[in-house]
Amino acid sequence: MLVRSIAFAGLLFISACSTVPSMLTPTVEVERQLMNADRAFSDLSARKGMAAAFTAYMDPREGMMIRPGGIAEGAQQIGQMFSGAGDVKLTWIPDRAYASNSGDFGMTTGRFTRAAPGGAPAEGRYVTVWRKNNNGEWKALVDIGNADPAPAQ
Amino acid sequence: MLVRSIAFAGLLFISACSTVPSMLTPTVEVERQLMNADRAFSDLSARKGMAAAFTAYMDPREGMMIRPGGIAEGAQQIGQMFSGAGDVKLTWIPDRAYASNSGDFGMTTGRFTRAAPGGAPAEGRYVTVWRKNNNGEWKALVDIGNADPAPAQ
Repeated sequence: MLVRSIAFAGLLFISACSTVPSMLTPTVEVERQLMNADRAFSDLSARKGMAAAFTAYMDPREGMMIRPGGIAEGAQQIGQMFSGAGDVKLTWIPDRAYASNSGDFGMTTGRFTRAAPGGAPAEGRYVTVWRKNNNGEWKALVDIGNADPAPAQ
Repeated sequence: MLVRSIAFAGLLFISACSTVPSMLTPTVEVERQLMNADRAFSDLSARKGMAAAFTAYMDPREGMMIRPGGIAEGAQQIGQMFSGAGDVKLTWIPDRAYASNSGDFGMTTGRFTRAAPGGAPAEGRYVTVWRKNNNGEWKALVDIGNADPAPAQ
Protein backbone atom coordinates (compact mmCIF):
# COMPACT_ATOMS: atom_id res chain seq x y z
CA MET A 1 0.00 0.00 0.00
CA LEU A 2 2.85 2.35 0.78
CA VAL A 3 4.39 1.63 -2.60
CA ARG A 4 1.11 2.12 -4.38
CA SER A 5 0.48 5.40 -2.52
CA ILE A 6 3.92 6.71 -3.33
CA ALA A 7 3.28 5.84 -6.94
CA PHE A 8 -0.01 7.72 -6.63
CA ALA A 9 1.84 10.65 -5.09
CA GLY A 10 4.26 10.52 -7.98
CA LEU A 11 1.44 10.64 -10.47
CA LEU A 12 -0.10 13.60 -8.67
CA PHE A 13 3.26 15.32 -8.69
CA ILE A 14 3.75 14.75 -12.40
CA SER A 15 0.18 15.81 -13.04
CA ALA A 16 0.65 19.01 -11.04
CA CYS A 17 3.96 19.80 -12.68
CA SER A 18 2.60 19.10 -16.12
CA THR A 19 0.39 22.17 -15.74
CA VAL A 20 3.51 24.31 -15.75
CA PRO A 21 4.74 23.55 -19.26
CA SER A 22 1.18 23.61 -20.57
CA MET A 23 0.89 27.21 -19.29
CA LEU A 24 3.98 28.08 -21.25
CA THR A 25 3.25 27.80 -24.94
CA PRO A 26 6.54 27.46 -26.83
CA THR A 27 7.69 30.90 -27.92
CA VAL A 28 8.05 29.78 -31.53
CA GLU A 29 4.37 28.78 -31.60
CA VAL A 30 3.29 32.13 -30.14
CA GLU A 31 5.43 33.93 -32.70
CA ARG A 32 3.64 31.99 -35.43
CA GLN A 33 0.29 33.09 -33.92
CA LEU A 34 1.47 36.71 -33.93
CA MET A 35 2.62 36.56 -37.57
CA ASN A 36 -0.80 35.15 -38.50
CA ALA A 37 -2.68 37.78 -36.48
CA ASP A 38 -0.66 40.53 -38.13
CA ARG A 39 -1.27 39.10 -41.63
CA ALA A 40 -5.01 38.88 -40.90
CA PHE A 41 -4.92 42.50 -39.68
CA SER A 42 -3.35 43.59 -42.99
CA ASP A 43 -5.77 41.44 -45.00
CA LEU A 44 -8.71 43.14 -43.29
CA SER A 45 -7.18 46.54 -44.03
CA ALA A 46 -6.86 45.55 -47.71
CA ARG A 47 -10.45 44.27 -47.91
CA LYS A 48 -12.38 46.63 -45.63
CA GLY A 49 -10.10 49.64 -45.23
CA MET A 50 -7.93 51.09 -42.50
CA ALA A 51 -10.81 52.29 -40.31
CA ALA A 52 -12.41 48.83 -40.08
CA ALA A 53 -9.11 47.04 -39.58
CA PHE A 54 -7.76 49.29 -36.83
CA THR A 55 -11.13 49.34 -35.04
CA ALA A 56 -11.09 45.52 -35.02
CA TYR A 57 -7.46 44.94 -34.05
CA MET A 58 -6.40 47.77 -31.74
CA ASP A 59 -6.99 47.29 -28.02
CA PRO A 60 -10.40 48.89 -27.33
CA ARG A 61 -9.18 51.01 -24.43
CA GLU A 62 -5.38 51.08 -24.38
CA GLY A 63 -4.48 50.72 -28.06
CA MET A 64 -2.26 53.62 -29.13
CA MET A 65 -1.63 54.69 -32.71
CA ILE A 66 1.52 56.82 -32.82
CA ARG A 67 2.08 59.05 -35.82
CA PRO A 68 4.19 62.13 -36.50
CA GLY A 69 2.41 64.95 -34.71
CA GLY A 70 0.55 62.96 -32.11
CA ILE A 71 -1.30 59.88 -30.98
CA ALA A 72 -4.81 58.46 -31.05
CA GLU A 73 -5.93 56.13 -28.27
CA GLY A 74 -8.56 53.40 -28.19
CA ALA A 75 -9.79 51.32 -31.13
CA GLN A 76 -12.85 53.49 -31.81
CA GLN A 77 -10.93 56.76 -31.85
CA ILE A 78 -8.21 55.29 -34.06
CA GLY A 79 -10.82 53.94 -36.45
CA GLN A 80 -12.49 57.36 -36.61
CA MET A 81 -9.14 58.99 -37.34
CA PHE A 82 -8.84 56.74 -40.40
CA SER A 83 -12.47 57.10 -41.46
CA GLY A 84 -11.56 60.12 -43.56
CA ALA A 85 -8.73 58.28 -45.30
CA GLY A 86 -10.91 57.60 -48.35
CA ASP A 87 -9.23 55.35 -50.89
CA VAL A 88 -5.86 55.28 -49.17
CA LYS A 89 -4.82 51.64 -48.89
CA LEU A 90 -2.51 50.60 -46.08
CA THR A 91 -1.19 47.04 -46.13
CA TRP A 92 1.86 45.36 -44.62
CA ILE A 93 3.86 42.15 -44.42
CA PRO A 94 5.39 41.10 -41.09
CA ASP A 95 8.89 39.67 -41.32
CA ARG A 96 9.68 39.09 -37.65
CA ALA A 97 7.87 38.33 -34.39
CA TYR A 98 8.95 38.04 -30.76
CA ALA A 99 6.88 36.68 -27.88
CA SER A 100 6.90 36.37 -24.11
CA ASN A 101 7.28 33.00 -22.40
CA SER A 102 3.69 33.27 -21.13
CA GLY A 103 2.36 33.53 -24.66
CA ASP A 104 0.23 36.58 -23.87
CA PHE A 105 2.48 39.36 -25.14
CA GLY A 106 4.69 40.00 -28.15
CA MET A 107 5.49 42.15 -31.13
CA THR A 108 5.67 42.01 -34.88
CA THR A 109 7.63 44.16 -37.29
CA GLY A 110 7.66 44.33 -41.05
CA ARG A 111 7.22 46.65 -43.99
CA PHE A 112 4.12 48.62 -44.89
CA THR A 113 2.91 50.22 -48.11
CA ARG A 114 0.51 53.15 -48.10
CA ALA A 115 -0.99 53.79 -51.50
CA ALA A 116 -3.28 56.67 -52.43
CA PRO A 117 -4.99 56.72 -55.82
CA GLY A 118 -2.87 58.62 -58.32
CA GLY A 119 0.07 59.07 -55.91
CA ALA A 120 3.34 57.24 -55.51
CA PRO A 121 3.08 54.63 -52.74
CA ALA A 122 4.94 55.34 -49.52
CA GLU A 123 6.80 52.53 -47.80
CA GLY A 124 8.30 52.02 -44.40
CA ARG A 125 8.83 49.80 -41.38
CA TYR A 126 6.31 49.41 -38.58
CA VAL A 127 6.21 47.88 -35.12
CA THR A 128 3.04 46.48 -33.58
CA VAL A 129 2.99 45.41 -29.91
CA TRP A 130 0.40 42.76 -29.09
CA ARG A 131 -1.32 41.56 -25.94
CA LYS A 132 -3.76 38.66 -25.72
CA ASN A 133 -7.09 39.60 -24.15
CA ASN A 134 -9.19 37.45 -21.82
CA ASN A 135 -10.96 35.89 -24.82
CA GLY A 136 -7.64 34.71 -26.26
CA GLU A 137 -7.70 37.32 -29.04
CA TRP A 138 -4.58 39.27 -29.92
CA LYS A 139 -5.11 43.04 -29.72
CA ALA A 140 -2.59 45.72 -30.65
CA LEU A 141 -1.39 47.96 -27.81
CA VAL A 142 0.79 50.10 -30.07
CA ASP A 143 1.21 50.71 -33.75
CA ILE A 144 4.03 52.93 -34.98
CA GLY A 145 6.05 53.23 -38.19
CA ASN A 146 8.83 55.11 -39.92
CA ALA A 147 9.15 55.92 -43.62
CA ASP A 148 11.77 53.93 -45.53
CA PRO A 149 13.08 55.27 -47.79
CA ALA A 150 13.08 58.47 -45.75
CA PRO A 151 10.79 61.23 -47.03
CA ALA A 152 12.47 64.02 -48.96
CA GLN A 153 13.29 66.95 -46.66
CA MET B 1 -0.43 4.36 5.95
CA LEU B 2 -2.81 5.08 3.12
CA VAL B 3 -4.01 8.21 4.88
CA ARG B 4 -0.49 9.37 5.58
CA SER B 5 0.51 8.71 1.99
CA ILE B 6 -2.44 10.62 0.67
CA ALA B 7 -1.47 13.48 2.93
CA PHE B 8 2.05 13.23 1.54
CA ALA B 9 0.62 13.23 -1.97
CA GLY B 10 -1.36 16.31 -1.06
CA LEU B 11 1.75 18.06 0.20
CA LEU B 12 3.58 17.18 -3.01
CA PHE B 13 0.65 18.47 -4.99
CA ILE B 14 0.56 21.77 -3.10
CA SER B 15 4.32 22.07 -3.33
CA ALA B 16 4.29 21.48 -7.07
CA CYS B 17 1.44 23.89 -7.66
CA SER B 18 2.99 26.58 -5.52
CA THR B 19 5.73 26.95 -8.11
CA VAL B 20 3.18 28.24 -10.59
CA PRO B 21 2.27 31.57 -8.96
CA SER B 22 5.89 32.21 -8.01
CA MET B 23 6.82 32.01 -11.70
CA LEU B 24 4.36 34.80 -12.47
CA THR B 25 5.59 38.14 -11.15
CA PRO B 26 2.66 40.54 -10.84
CA THR B 27 2.39 42.59 -14.03
CA VAL B 28 2.38 45.87 -12.11
CA GLU B 29 5.76 44.99 -10.57
CA VAL B 30 7.22 44.13 -13.98
CA GLU B 31 5.90 47.39 -15.38
CA ARG B 32 7.68 49.20 -12.55
CA GLN B 33 10.91 47.36 -13.48
CA LEU B 34 10.48 48.41 -17.11
CA MET B 35 9.91 52.06 -16.22
CA ASN B 36 13.09 51.97 -14.11
CA ALA B 37 15.10 50.25 -16.85
CA ASP B 38 13.95 52.83 -19.37
CA ARG B 39 14.80 55.72 -17.02
CA ALA B 40 18.26 54.26 -16.42
CA PHE B 41 18.70 53.91 -20.20
CA SER B 42 17.90 57.62 -20.65
CA ASP B 43 20.14 58.59 -17.71
CA LEU B 44 23.06 56.75 -19.31
CA SER B 45 22.37 58.53 -22.61
CA ALA B 46 22.42 61.88 -20.78
CA ARG B 47 25.69 61.09 -18.95
CA LYS B 48 27.67 59.03 -21.48
CA GLY B 49 25.98 59.76 -24.79
CA MET B 50 23.75 57.90 -27.20
CA ALA B 51 26.44 55.50 -28.47
CA ALA B 52 27.27 54.21 -24.98
CA ALA B 53 23.64 53.97 -23.91
CA PHE B 54 22.36 52.12 -26.96
CA THR B 55 25.35 49.75 -26.94
CA ALA B 56 24.56 48.90 -23.31
CA TYR B 57 20.78 48.56 -23.55
CA MET B 58 19.95 47.19 -27.00
CA ASP B 59 19.84 43.41 -27.39
CA PRO B 60 23.35 42.42 -28.58
CA ARG B 61 22.16 40.37 -31.54
CA GLU B 62 18.48 41.08 -32.19
CA GLY B 63 18.12 44.71 -31.06
CA MET B 64 16.70 46.80 -33.89
CA MET B 65 16.85 50.59 -34.11
CA ILE B 66 14.25 51.79 -36.60
CA ARG B 67 14.61 55.26 -38.06
CA PRO B 68 13.28 57.01 -41.16
CA GLY B 69 15.29 55.58 -44.02
CA GLY B 70 16.30 52.28 -42.48
CA ILE B 71 17.31 50.15 -39.56
CA ALA B 72 20.41 49.20 -37.62
CA GLU B 73 20.62 45.81 -35.93
CA GLY B 74 22.60 44.60 -32.95
CA ALA B 75 23.83 46.70 -30.03
CA GLN B 76 27.34 47.23 -31.46
CA GLN B 77 26.14 48.38 -34.86
CA ILE B 78 23.54 50.69 -33.31
CA GLY B 79 26.18 52.17 -31.02
CA GLN B 80 28.50 52.74 -33.97
CA MET B 81 25.70 54.46 -35.87
CA PHE B 82 25.43 56.94 -33.00
CA SER B 83 29.18 57.34 -32.50
CA GLY B 84 29.22 60.21 -35.00
CA ALA B 85 26.38 62.01 -33.25
CA GLY B 86 28.83 64.35 -31.51
CA ASP B 87 27.16 66.59 -28.97
CA VAL B 88 23.63 65.60 -29.86
CA LYS B 89 21.85 64.75 -26.62
CA LEU B 90 18.97 62.30 -26.69
CA THR B 91 16.99 61.81 -23.50
CA TRP B 92 13.48 60.61 -22.74
CA ILE B 93 10.88 60.11 -20.03
CA PRO B 94 8.66 57.01 -20.10
CA ASP B 95 5.02 57.60 -19.22
CA ARG B 96 3.58 54.11 -19.72
CA ALA B 97 4.68 50.48 -19.54
CA TYR B 98 3.01 47.17 -20.33
CA ALA B 99 4.30 43.71 -19.44
CA SER B 100 3.62 40.04 -20.10
CA ASN B 101 2.30 37.73 -17.38
CA SER B 102 5.61 35.87 -17.41
CA GLY B 103 7.54 39.03 -16.55
CA ASP B 104 10.07 38.52 -19.34
CA PHE B 105 8.64 40.81 -22.00
CA GLY B 106 7.12 44.25 -22.21
CA MET B 107 7.22 47.73 -23.64
CA THR B 108 7.60 51.31 -22.59
CA THR B 109 6.51 54.49 -24.33
CA GLY B 110 7.11 58.12 -23.56
CA ARG B 111 8.44 61.37 -24.95
CA PHE B 112 11.97 62.04 -26.13
CA THR B 113 13.96 65.22 -26.66
CA ARG B 114 16.88 65.38 -29.08
CA ALA B 115 18.97 68.47 -28.60
CA ALA B 116 21.90 69.54 -30.77
CA PRO B 117 24.10 72.46 -29.69
CA GLY B 118 22.79 75.66 -31.19
CA GLY B 119 19.68 74.06 -32.67
CA ALA B 120 16.07 73.91 -31.56
CA PRO B 121 15.39 70.65 -29.73
CA ALA B 122 13.22 68.11 -31.52
CA GLU B 123 10.60 66.21 -29.56
CA GLY B 124 8.53 63.14 -30.15
CA ARG B 125 7.11 59.89 -28.88
CA TYR B 126 9.04 56.63 -28.81
CA VAL B 127 8.29 52.96 -28.21
CA THR B 128 10.83 50.54 -26.77
CA VAL B 129 10.11 46.80 -26.67
CA TRP B 130 11.96 44.91 -23.93
CA ARG B 131 12.91 41.28 -23.32
CA LYS B 132 14.65 39.95 -20.22
CA ASN B 133 17.81 38.00 -21.00
CA ASN B 134 19.06 34.89 -19.20
CA ASN B 135 20.93 37.08 -16.69
CA GLY B 136 17.71 38.84 -15.71
CA GLU B 137 18.71 42.06 -17.49
CA TRP B 138 16.20 43.95 -19.62
CA LYS B 139 17.44 44.46 -23.19
CA ALA B 140 15.68 46.46 -25.91
CA LEU B 141 14.53 44.47 -28.94
CA VAL B 142 13.20 47.53 -30.76
CA ASP B 143 13.48 51.27 -30.49
CA ILE B 144 11.37 53.50 -32.74
CA GLY B 145 9.99 57.03 -32.52
CA ASN B 146 7.94 59.66 -34.32
CA ALA B 147 8.36 63.42 -34.21
CA ASP B 148 5.73 65.33 -32.23
CA PRO B 149 5.06 68.05 -33.13
CA ALA B 150 5.39 66.80 -36.70
CA PRO B 151 8.35 68.20 -38.64
CA ALA B 152 7.55 71.01 -41.04
CA GLN B 153 6.95 69.69 -44.56
